[in-house]
Amino acid sequence: MTLLVITTSDRGTEFAEAARHHAAGLDVRLWPDVGNPADIHAALAWLPPKGVLAMLPNLKLMVSVGAGVDHLLSDPGLPDVPLVRYVDPDLTGRMAEYVGLQVLFHQRRMAEFIELQRQSRWEYLPEPAANEVRVGIMGLGVMGRAAIDVLRPFGFQLRGWSRTPKAIDGVACFAGTGDLDTFLAETDILVCLLPATPDTRGLLDARLLAGLSRTGRSARLPGPVLINAGRGSLQVEADILGALNEQTLYAASLDVFEVEPLPQASPLWRHPRVVVTPHNAAESTADAIARYFIRQVRDMAEGRPLENLVDRSRGY
Amino acid sequence: MTLLVITTSDRGTEFAEAARHHAAGLDVRLWPDVGNPADIHAALAWLPPKGVLAMLPNLKLMVSVGAGVDHLLSDPGLPDVPLVRYVDPDLTGRMAEYVGLQVLFHQRRMAEFIELQRQSRWEYLPEPAANEVRVGIMGLGVMGRAAIDVLRPFGFQLRGWSRTPKAIDGVACFAGTGDLDTFLAETDILVCLLPATPDTRGLLDARLLAGLSRTGRSARLPGPVLINAGRGSLQVEADILGALNEQTLYAASLDVFEVEPLPQASPLWRHPRVVVTPHNAAESTADAIARYFIRQVRDMAEGRPLENLVDRSRGY
Repeated sequence: MTLLVITTSDRGTEFAEAARHHAAGLDVRLWPDVGNPADIHAALAWLPPKGVLAMLPNLKLMVSVGAGVDHLLSDPGLPDVPLVRYVDPDLTGRMAEYVGLQVLFHQRRMAEFIELQRQSRWEYLPEPAANEVRVGIMGLGVMGRAAIDVLRPFGFQLRGWSRTPKAIDGVACFAGTGDLDTFLAETDILVCLLPATPDTRGLLDARLLAGLSRTGRSARLPGPVLINAGRGSLQVEADILGALNEQTLYAASLDVFEVEPLPQASPLWRHPRVVVTPHNAAESTADAIARYFIRQVRDMAEGRPLENLVDRSRGY
Repeated sequence: MTLLVITTSDRGTEFAEAARHHAAGLDVRLWPDVGNPADIHAALAWLPPKGVLAMLPNLKLMVSVGAGVDHLLSDPGLPDVPLVRYVDPDLTGRMAEYVGLQVLFHQRRMAEFIELQRQSRWEYLPEPAANEVRVGIMGLGVMGRAAIDVLRPFGFQLRGWSRTPKAIDGVACFAGTGDLDTFLAETDILVCLLPATPDTRGLLDARLLAGLSRTGRSARLPGPVLINAGRGSLQVEADILGALNEQTLYAASLDVFEVEPLPQASPLWRHPRVVVTPHNAAESTADAIARYFIRQVRDMAEGRPLENLVDRSRGY
């Protein structure tokens, strides 16, 4: 059994070393040092170069680093072998931390307090209590549910939206395109955790942002907030900037971007009410990723069913 | 029954209006328009001018805005009538939000990410997962427990310290001076919620900070963190700045200061890893404060026992 780690990111060595550590006895290679392509049985992939996976004739399994698989499905030559998403308590927990942090950050108007601090100004701003703020989560999979679990004890009013209907205790759930406007109209802080699929491309646009928080807005939050830790292809950055500048959007936390790394020229870097992070909302450790990869490889080798298998027609 | 709102802050009018709203039929006066001092039966006080409460011969009850009563006990002429602290779900919830926000902020190295953003730099920093970080809460009263309840779902390793022994599910509890060094040595993020008393004055000094996180420090957090939302008299600001500059302390979030408002000249305003907020960690609404005040007044009038009565020998 020979494994390949394949990535165009700078984390390849780290992933390969961790995989060797957990794969006692297995041959782990790091692209581009593939050796004989026919040797490779399973690949751990993160932003792989297009076309390379198709050149591995005996590939039986692909494991994606990260919960999103758009970086793989966008390769028209992706081989037709089982593709597994990375879903792990480490990843999920980190996403919950990110969501908790960014929701609290804007509910407590921290972008403004940081700006006041920069000016050495001691000034009160009215802040809503958590129970006065409606947080809406788009995407109610493992990560959306983990986010809900950490937000609940603060007392936020929780609501959720997903493609297909879900029921979650204490959360007002909405589903499908038909419910979207109703969901948005009563959401003050929108948290997007959706995958990149043809259906979600450009979803976070001017129209969607204009629909946020139209009824019963918390008087002490200056406007609605967007938090996107899904994928950059969901957001129309020009529309987000437009809404921020017109103040129909109060603030945003963006972890993902149309182009990554976010280009130096983007005004998002310099907007006083935007928090930019380098796609690290849920960056897992190489150790946790490698453990997961090797577990999938062993499950496959021993004929156990694979978990978190991607449905390509759905896109995740 | 005649009530007095007394404060040197700029929130007096707001408090008095809210008290009138909730005190249907009662006469509510706002200092300095006291009228006949003999009329006043109960006072709602926040940073009152010293000596004035002693001039009210028929005062039967004092209610403090805020959980801390040092702003009252520091008045040598404070009349010997029952003094009640403000303890309310609104206040407690806001403190829990503040603690959750500031703990996550530093665990996720946000001060550094904000600095990177300012420089338009897309750069990863290793961050510990919540379950790799030991958060120690000093003060296990109502607010400390509320903070624990919101931190727990993230998976932080929780520990607590209090004057007298306490037992809290899933929290390693330490008590008294004898346990302090042990508690500090295994704390990465210290959250101080202690009241200002003669015993706590200057507690957060160089010696205490040097004792933090000495054993098994999380490799991915650059150093220990101090969060103080107790009282400014607890902290020695020169020592905190010294520890930050020597990098024995990684970062701090301070909501309270030796002198408030924090003087313009303080280097704390401009330190890149310090978050300064204007004593608003748990700033309650006038409405919630007035409701509480009027409830205490009615309890007293109808002979019910008073809640949250201050023990002056203890200082809170």
